[in-house]
Amino acid sequence: MSEILLYDIPRKDPENGPWSPNTLKARLALNLKGLPFKTVWVEYPDIPSECKKIGAPPTSTEADGTPRYTLPVIYDPSTKKAIADSYAIAEYLDATYPTDRQIIPAGTEGLHAAFNKAFMDSVYFPCMFTIGPLSVSALNPPSERYFRTIRGDLLALVDSVRPEERWRKVQAAFEVVNGWYEKADNGKVLLMGDTPAWADIVVAALLVCARNLLGRESPEWKAVSEWHGGRWAKLVAALEGKVLYPGYGWTKQGGQS
Amino acid sequence: MSEILLYDIPRKDPENGPWSPNTLKARLALNLKGLPFKTVWVEYPDIPSECKKIGAPPTSTEADGTPRYTLPVIYDPSTKKAIADSYAIAEYLDATYPTDRQIIPAGTEGLHAAFNKAFMDSVYFPCMFTIGPLSVSALNPPSERYFRTIRGDLLALVDSVRPEERWRKVQAAFEVVNGWYEKADNGKVLLMGDTPAWADIVVAALLVCARNLLGRESPEWKAVSEWHGGRWAKLVAALEGKVLYPGYGWTKQGGQS
Repeated sequence: MSEILLYDIPRKDPENGPWSPNTLKARLALNLKGLPFKTVWVEYPDIPSECKKIGAPPTSTEADGTPRYTLPVIYDPSTKKAIADSYAIAEYLDATYPTDRQIIPAGTEGLHAAFNKAFMDSVYFPCMFTIGPLSVSALNPPSERYFRTIRGDLLALVDSVRPEERWRKVQAAFEVVNGWYEKADNGKVLLMGDTPAWADIVVAALLVCARNLLGRESPEWKAVSEWHGGRWAKLVAALEGKVLYPGYGWTKQGGQS
Repeated sequence: MSEILLYDIPRKDPENGPWSPNTLKARLALNLKGLPFKTVWVEYPDIPSECKKIGAPPTSTEADGTPRYTLPVIYDPSTKKAIADSYAIAEYLDATYPTDRQIIPAGTEGLHAAFNKAFMDSVYFPCMFTIGPLSVSALNPPSERYFRTIRGDLLALVDSVRPEERWRKVQAAFEVVNGWYEKADNGKVLLMGDTPAWADIVVAALLVCARNLLGRESPEWKAVSEWHGGRWAKLVAALEGKVLYPGYGWTKQGGQS
């Protein structure tokens, strides 16, 4: 089959690894399926035109009613389809390239959709309040300028909350996720047992990007690594062993190309 | 085995059926496992003393720091254990009386825990704002008096929101749940396919109690029955067929006894 194209947003220090949890989720999903793919790097201001070029739909609507285009997007030359939104990409890959063990295992589609909502509401947004500003500073100048102009209100909102308060919310959020992972059978690291599922991809993508933005040696990441008996460091290690590095474009291709 | 005791709160018109979603969840879980049980009816003011008598733990803490005892609680004479909280009861029944198809199917424990949070946050609380006042009026006088005294602040909070606004929130909440159920394979009515799981019990318990409090012929219940292609009426019918009525104490025992 032809290589699938994954549209992702570059950073200025690619050696520090993925910075966008949403595009990393799609990357991990492609790796989990073992599908060949290559990355198309797109700066923020070019996202709408690149999406329109391949027929990728907008994922939401701006406050002024205009369509909002976001990455990740994939384009699959074998089916000539463009898919936007990481969850929709996972569903597309499972449907188009079914395997014995799906990203979203059969029968758990509805539970995974609920997981996704619980995670985005209770964990992702509180965490983005902490790592969001770091991610903007990691962008190349055209993207950083664009983001600061278009999403300035969001950044002002983040600035209005004290860093210690934001960090407290991240801790509280991971208390909640820990409660879910504690239910996994026999203290296993992955939520559904032995094979990573979409839920693990969602959590690991956020953790990996947080680590890559905070720095592996930062006090914040060291603290996270020790929370809940080292659960989050183990989850990242499990995903990096099984999913991240085999065929992982970022490292294999020698950074972003 | 000896009959398990299910501690539940009576209503003054038992012929109208279960009114408490939380105790109904435990009732449905017992029915789904096919375990023999009988109901112990407890009025609100007697809940703490009854719980202490059988060694059931409190489920949370009051604002003043004192332990808060809630129903459902079960007491299992075979193991001499008392379990509080409907989710913990389902986990206990699965662990103690394992079957081929668990209430919380193997591998989905973590996803179900996340579902539970998403449902309670996004659906249960908005809905209780609408059916909560009806449930208080359905109680026997000692319970109604007690509830209005102890939880008066909650009822005042409900009163501060216009009924149309509350109803709008219920509709919005069921839009969210519909999004999850739409993911179920082949348009099936149950979230995981052919057998009810905890997620279905949670949703159906709320719907059944809403129907029983609003009245089957009320315009509100008729509206709910037609939402999303009749999905919610079908879900209740599926659960009533498979779980509610076989061995269902409420009807078999001729009301509350």
